[in-house]
Amino acid sequence: MPEIKADGKVATFINVFPTRPRDQHKLVELLIEAHENVIRQRPGYVSTNIHRSADGYVVVDYTQWERREDFEAMVRDPAVAPYFAPIGELTRGEQKAYDVVYCHELDGEAVRSL
Amino acid sequence: MPEIKADGKVATFINVFPTRPRDQHKLVELLIEAHENVIRQRPGYVSTNIHRSADGYVVVDYTQWERREDFEAMVRDPAVAPYFAPIGELTRGEQKAYDVVYCHELDGEAVRSL
Repeated sequence: MPEIKADGKVATFINVFPTRPRDQHKLVELLIEAHENVIRQRPGYVSTNIHRSADGYVVVDYTQWERREDFEAMVRDPAVAPYFAPIGELTRGEQKAYDVVYCHELDGEAVRSL
Repeated sequence: MPEIKADGKVATFINVFPTRPRDQHKLVELLIEAHENVIRQRPGYVSTNIHRSADGYVVVDYTQWERREDFEAMVRDPAVAPYFAPIGELTRGEQKAYDVVYCHELDGEAVRSL
């Protein structure tokens, strides 16, 4: 299963999708469909983790790519557009690139990359 | 380093803090200070990962706890309040509990928990 590290070896994208409790399950299903049918076959894909907020109002997709450019190329890929269209009808997600700057696990050493 | 799994064995909190490029570094430092001085000593703490958006406008703290109640007790703990006060001056973060519903890594089997 995917691991979070502060070593800068993967590019991290955290996509926050505001939604409503009645749409949340459908949104998760559409994201899984997009991942399974097109996203995971794109060059540079490393991993994805989809999260559903307990209150029903957010879905977070935490994805790792080899390079930022790989994610950006995927978003522009015409093969992906038909899967993003129904997602865009349910939510306007914000997709951003992140650096992991601090990691710590109980009884382990913290790793900083500031 | 922390691992993301869809087995429901840990409680996941994703805390999204909007900020500004000029405040982002200070916000990251305050979050690390809070984690190192009080949060990681609270009962039920498992791991934390702090992320800085490349555009300077967001900090995301991805934390795992044994149970949701452990995180909620930490937030209410008076020992934590002095560390949250300066963070509250920089941002109004949204702290939410999440379920991991889908995990996939290149060349691995997807794990669903819907």
